[in-house]
Amino acid sequence: MTSVWVKRKSAKKGRSPGALIHVGDVHSQVPRITCSIYEGFLTSRPLDDKSVLWLSVEGLHEVDIIRRVGTIFGINDLVLEDIADTGHRPKVEEFPDYAFLIVRALDIDPTTGRLSPEQVSLILGKNFLITFRERQTPLFQPIQQRLALERSRIRVSGADYLAYSLIDVIVDNYFEVLEKIADKVEVIEDVVVKGPSRSTLESIYQLKTDLLFLRKSVWPMREIANRMINGDIPFVRDTTKPYLRDVLDHTIHAVDTVETYRDIVSGMLDIYLSAVSNRLNETMKILTIIATIFIPLTFLCGWYGMNFKYMPELDWRYGYPMVIFIAVTSAVAMLIAFRRKKWL
Amino acid sequence: MTSVWVKRKSAKKGRSPGALIHVGDVHSQVPRITCSIYEGFLTSRPLDDKSVLWLSVEGLHEVDIIRRVGTIFGINDLVLEDIADTGHRPKVEEFPDYAFLIVRALDIDPTTGRLSPEQVSLILGKNFLITFRERQTPLFQPIQQRLALERSRIRVSGADYLAYSLIDVIVDNYFEVLEKIADKVEVIEDVVVKGPSRSTLESIYQLKTDLLFLRKSVWPMREIANRMINGDIPFVRDTTKPYLRDVLDHTIHAVDTVETYRDIVSGMLDIYLSAVSNRLNETMKILTIIATIFIPLTFLCGWYGMNFKYMPELDWRYGYPMVIFIAVTSAVAMLIAFRRKKWL
Amino acid sequence: MTSVWVKRKSAKKGRSPGALIHVGDVHSQVPRITCSIYEGFLTSRPLDDKSVLWLSVEGLHEVDIIRRVGTIFGINDLVLEDIADTGHRPKVEEFPDYAFLIVRALDIDPTTGRLSPEQVSLILGKNFLITFRERQTPLFQPIQQRLALERSRIRVSGADYLAYSLIDVIVDNYFEVLEKIADKVEVIEDVVVKGPSRSTLESIYQLKTDLLFLRKSVWPMREIANRMINGDIPFVRDTTKPYLRDVLDHTIHAVDTVETYRDIVSGMLDIYLSAVSNRLNETMKILTIIATIFIPLTFLCGWYGMNFKYMPELDWRYGYPMVIFIAVTSAVAMLIAFRRKKWL
Amino acid sequence: MTSVWVKRKSAKKGRSPGALIHVGDVHSQVPRITCSIYEGFLTSRPLDDKSVLWLSVEGLHEVDIIRRVGTIFGINDLVLEDIADTGHRPKVEEFPDYAFLIVRALDIDPTTGRLSPEQVSLILGKNFLITFRERQTPLFQPIQQRLALERSRIRVSGADYLAYSLIDVIVDNYFEVLEKIADKVEVIEDVVVKGPSRSTLESIYQLKTDLLFLRKSVWPMREIANRMINGDIPFVRDTTKPYLRDVLDHTIHAVDTVETYRDIVSGMLDIYLSAVSNRLNETMKILTIIATIFIPLTFLCGWYGMNFKYMPELDWRYGYPMVIFIAVTSAVAMLIAFRRKKWL
Amino acid sequence: MTSVWVKRKSAKKGRSPGALIHVGDVHSQVPRITCSIYEGFLTSRPLDDKSVLWLSVEGLHEVDIIRRVGTIFGINDLVLEDIADTGHRPKVEEFPDYAFLIVRALDIDPTTGRLSPEQVSLILGKNFLITFRERQTPLFQPIQQRLALERSRIRVSGADYLAYSLIDVIVDNYFEVLEKIADKVEVIEDVVVKGPSRSTLESIYQLKTDLLFLRKSVWPMREIANRMINGDIPFVRDTTKPYLRDVLDHTIHAVDTVETYRDIVSGMLDIYLSAVSNRLNETMKILTIIATIFIPLTFLCGWYGMNFKYMPELDWRYGYPMVIFIAVTSAVAMLIAFRRKKWL
Repeated sequence: MTSVWVKRKSAKKGRSPGALIHVGDVHSQVPRITCSIYEGFLTSRPLDDKSVLWLSVEGLHEVDIIRRVGTIFGINDLVLEDIADTGHRPKVEEFPDYAFLIVRALDIDPTTGRLSPEQVSLILGKNFLITFRERQTPLFQPIQQRLALERSRIRVSGADYLAYSLIDVIVDNYFEVLEKIADKVEVIEDVVVKGPSRSTLESIYQLKTDLLFLRKSVWPMREIANRMINGDIPFVRDTTKPYLRDVLDHTIHAVDTVETYRDIVSGMLDIYLSAVSNRLNETMKILTIIATIFIPLTFLCGWYGMNFKYMPELDWRYGYPMVIFIAVTSAVAMLIAFRRKKWL
Repeated sequence: MTSVWVKRKSAKKGRSPGALIHVGDVHSQVPRITCSIYEGFLTSRPLDDKSVLWLSVEGLHEVDIIRRVGTIFGINDLVLEDIADTGHRPKVEEFPDYAFLIVRALDIDPTTGRLSPEQVSLILGKNFLITFRERQTPLFQPIQQRLALERSRIRVSGADYLAYSLIDVIVDNYFEVLEKIADKVEVIEDVVVKGPSRSTLESIYQLKTDLLFLRKSVWPMREIANRMINGDIPFVRDTTKPYLRDVLDHTIHAVDTVETYRDIVSGMLDIYLSAVSNRLNETMKILTIIATIFIPLTFLCGWYGMNFKYMPELDWRYGYPMVIFIAVTSAVAMLIAFRRKKWL
Repeated sequence: MTSVWVKRKSAKKGRSPGALIHVGDVHSQVPRITCSIYEGFLTSRPLDDKSVLWLSVEGLHEVDIIRRVGTIFGINDLVLEDIADTGHRPKVEEFPDYAFLIVRALDIDPTTGRLSPEQVSLILGKNFLITFRERQTPLFQPIQQRLALERSRIRVSGADYLAYSLIDVIVDNYFEVLEKIADKVEVIEDVVVKGPSRSTLESIYQLKTDLLFLRKSVWPMREIANRMINGDIPFVRDTTKPYLRDVLDHTIHAVDTVETYRDIVSGMLDIYLSAVSNRLNETMKILTIIATIFIPLTFLCGWYGMNFKYMPELDWRYGYPMVIFIAVTSAVAMLIAFRRKKWL
Repeated sequence: MTSVWVKRKSAKKGRSPGALIHVGDVHSQVPRITCSIYEGFLTSRPLDDKSVLWLSVEGLHEVDIIRRVGTIFGINDLVLEDIADTGHRPKVEEFPDYAFLIVRALDIDPTTGRLSPEQVSLILGKNFLITFRERQTPLFQPIQQRLALERSRIRVSGADYLAYSLIDVIVDNYFEVLEKIADKVEVIEDVVVKGPSRSTLESIYQLKTDLLFLRKSVWPMREIANRMINGDIPFVRDTTKPYLRDVLDHTIHAVDTVETYRDIVSGMLDIYLSAVSNRLNETMKILTIIATIFIPLTFLCGWYGMNFKYMPELDWRYGYPMVIFIAVTSAVAMLIAFRRKKWL
Repeated sequence: MTSVWVKRKSAKKGRSPGALIHVGDVHSQVPRITCSIYEGFLTSRPLDDKSVLWLSVEGLHEVDIIRRVGTIFGINDLVLEDIADTGHRPKVEEFPDYAFLIVRALDIDPTTGRLSPEQVSLILGKNFLITFRERQTPLFQPIQQRLALERSRIRVSGADYLAYSLIDVIVDNYFEVLEKIADKVEVIEDVVVKGPSRSTLESIYQLKTDLLFLRKSVWPMREIANRMINGDIPFVRDTTKPYLRDVLDHTIHAVDTVETYRDIVSGMLDIYLSAVSNRLNETMKILTIIATIFIPLTFLCGWYGMNFKYMPELDWRYGYPMVIFIAVTSAVAMLIAFRRKKWL
């Protein structure tokens, strides 16, 4: 799992900057390109000043597509390099003709139950938005559906509002991920308090690394939203800013929640460790009770098992009843002592 | 319990912003709306410039009420969305005609002994205050009573002073919660030092998560109070600011106290863990003392329990007294050794 | 002990601000009011522009006294409320006619050995200083003595210098407290390294909470000194500022020392825990040595204690010497093995 | 390993500043000096305004070389001292005629698997760059190769671009190091979860110190890149700044990743410790099961091994079968009890 | 050792400020005063504008000397108090006619191996420097030697350069101390990994407190150097500032290194604790193996040691060989099981 932290960049070492090399794990699918143009209504007319173009590229391993798109829209080489090199830190960069955003969409992989990150790159121009994704999941489907609706605000609101909508979907997804993590936390919480097993530890460790990754992904979103609001990017209009402020608000909430869960999970580890100690204690108590009761009795038996010729007790008439009495008394005394210590 | 951290927002994903969906746990009660108008005296006259209107909505699951109130007072859709979506982070937002505040009231649920949060939303206009609450608890009763008094300062002091009074009640409640937590801490402190049980651990863990939540709720109140004082909100008059400064002061004190308790509780966990270690040690000592005293004696008995034909000691006249002597000497020697080690 | 963190404020909830309710633990003593007027010399003449008045109130539970003093000097209601409500965070507040300071004096209670805090409130006007204390301890005696001296600088230096002198005494007291804590730390350090007992843990825990409280008390003093130096308060003259800078210097030193001790004490806890582990290890070693040596021997004895009819060894001439030889050899071999493992 | 933290500087104590003494570990190799001059093409003509000179010194133990280079280019004595004194903190210093940079190149030593740091000093002038390295590794080979290519951007872009290229290679190397650490982390992660051995602990400890050193090396690179971008150094032209911004971006990513790994590694330590606890628990369980089953049985045998004359059971016809029955019953009861406790 | 944190200041409590009381541990030596005057050459002529005077006082317990020096040079009473009161936090204060610096020189006491701090106070005037030290160690000897050299830069460079030289010596000493600590760390690192003993723990604890103290001493040096560079002190000329920047650089490096060692040492504590756990585990394994193999065998022997009259096995011809077979089989089975668990 931890390999997601560092994508293999060795291939790029020593290359001149701007060299286009795909760094990522997803290679299998055929890239899919979809293009929507609208100016209040969806259209296929050539792009003019009022219309908005959304070009969506899904699948990055064929870097040639990235290069061609880059040439058509006049995108800087370093930007194209960052698009191909997934595993980048979320960030925002301004250029004279466009703004470049990297954000990270997150999902829980249903098979492994672990976090599955995806880098989404956005190039936001005056009246166009280009998105690059690694996968072909239905992440942006709700947006496409709203775009298909006739009177949706999205259609009449420009490329910046479209970018906001996409980012909003991604941030909303964080909460879905957090809910799934909340479910896990509650399950583990129960297990830990009732009686943890070895696999509990692994689950806690996985939660911990997932939350670490979550934080690493969500944290830079604050800066991105902040810079979009504070007017660094000319293509973001003032009418879109209240919506971005809402996104910032949600991002802060997400960061906050992640931090809280991290504290909770590390608290659970303490509980787990002390539950293990408790169990050790219980085991030891049983052993000690057994040993403390029987070892003296066994000694007693051994004593009268000795074969000395001259051992007067062995010939006594009431030797055996005496031994029975001693044994019972000693055992009862022990049991009382343990009850006083609250061991029984 | 941890589910309070993330309210289920999945239902909202992909919806256009401003969609009114209630996100919260409280559904059962019929919403209650109360309205007070006063201009030095309580009145039912229509609202004019001098009079103050307090509209209080308790119960949020019928979002239609929120929408209608929103329409009447001209409230932004995003604000209404935040009101319906409880579990929000406390915050303050200014709009041209009103300020929007989310604060979190806290209480200790008497049945479970755990924290029970409630989101209180305030919309503060020039001469009106609208409050939205999830529940119908007597939280604001003291204010209503003071409002009913004829010469109360609250009646002659405008909507901002009313808002301050409500926030003050909520902040004062934090101290009540802190007192209850202080009581718990003292109880657990005693138990931990004297002899902790398994349930102690659970109590410590619960205290820890409660304090975590408390901090998360109280912390943003500082910013809210600060921004109300620093003139961000035009509807807060200068005469109300000394009172808000007092609220800020209390909030800082509450934050401080929460931090202190968090340190104390994590200190208690250390004590608990080492108390468990100590008990393990004690158990082991008992076991070791028993074993160390009796195992050699048992060996001795076993030795003279052997059935060899030619074992001279068995036929000695003083064989048995000799064994008694050896056994007593060895046991006494052991006891002295243990006393030297300070085990007895 | 932890109850000192949160004074019971429940009684105040829902009351209008400025309601005078004493919140504190000290109730028994009769309040004592002393008044000194001087203008280079002690005088009983009515107050004029050159003379300085020091009004000292010791004992806060009769809130009527506070109210009357407040009325005479025209003190704000919120200030009076803070004076009566001990357990406040140290702070400084300016008003047009006076400055209001809350500082916390600390002492070690000689009977319990724990920290004993006292809230001291100062109202500093142009030529008067009013002090409110909870107790009647000789804390300010040295100042009173210096005031009684004919040529003391304190007599010719105005109310601000008098306030500085009192704060200086309080800060100097912090170092006395720190010295006593240093003594405790050294004692516990010794005990921990040599052989800790159960009570050691409690002492460490008490030190920890005391240091926590100490930090909470000393930390805000920095801000108080800073604001007095930086000219926020008009009644502090420039000639007094070098002295306040000295106080600030001492406060920073105190904060620093508290932090250092906190690190040392948490280091001691680690040592304590590992000393406990070490002892467990030692106990286990003894048990293991005893068991490892005797269990095989006991088995040997048991073996030849069996009653089979056809057991040739029992009838051998040298059966018994053979067993003796085996037993001695086995025990010696074990001892050598343990010595190699460095257990003996 | 830890000796890399503090290079032996004792030899320098009390010397006047600027005294040239080599402080470092690498002494064996003969220093190698290479010089490249280019002005679009590689040349051997004397340096003029358009041409760029790269003087590379590899091997620092002959301080005379440093001194001579310093004299020729008019370098400050304190700078030369810092060049010779490897183990310096990365930093940047401006001088009127040049800028002085210390950066740290990192590699994983293939024999020990540990971090192997190297101090690289750069002196960047208007049209010259002098680099000082401790070793003669092929670190800068890719740059030399690109310099040898006819149409490389590096050749036509000035000394600042060359400096950027070298720093870029060094930062790219950090990711190579991080990848190797990621591999190690994944290996150890597996081992820890499956069943750690003693050497695991050592590996974790080594990873920890390596990450500590990594952070110490990477962290100041942010400041270096930042200051080069923010125009502190006149020799860095605006055209080079986008590239430096890229370096800054990578550095932040590296710092981020190092922090994440540190969190992961300390998480692994917790897992390791609790795995050890788990194993102890398992051992104890086995011991307790064995002892709990057999000790009572052994007592039973001892009991009827006693040699009393009057022991009626011994003479019973069904005494022996009775004992067999008791023994089997007791053992089965124990096994059932253990199964209920889920120990078996 | 910890007593160095708080020098006994109780004697000063309640005294008026500026009261000269020596607070420190060094009392035995006779104070030594040396005076050097130079203006390019060493001279005994009376002080004029060009010459520089260095007055060095070693030994502070005779406060009369401090007072007299103070009177001659017109030094503020609060400054003299700080000089006598060793154990002060390093700081810098400006006065119209001089600057007052407190720095802390550190050494490793060769007998105890612990840190031995010394407060060095410097009063830097336009052409004089007064130094106060507690001890008469050869700390400043290299400076005195360089001063004795005819063409040393120190002689022609004014009092500020002399002050820099002394501070430089002190900072260089930090690295010597750090080297000694590095040696200790490496020794302990080895011991911890190979097999720690009880004294290891004490060494780790001592290292920890020493590093704590080191940090407390070195940290404020940054501020001192910073303020001397940033022109707060008029007596520091611009020509001396590059040297002070070098000192600042070294100080930052020292702080950095101290922090790194603190991390390493706390890492070692973890290793130590888990090594102790490991050893406990090993002990337990031995005990369990012994017990698990022999307890069933002993039971077997006990079984056939019973004295029942009717025990058919005892009379069997092959009863004894059968028991031998069972015993050997059971022991071998156990050994195989343990090998499978990798315990052997």
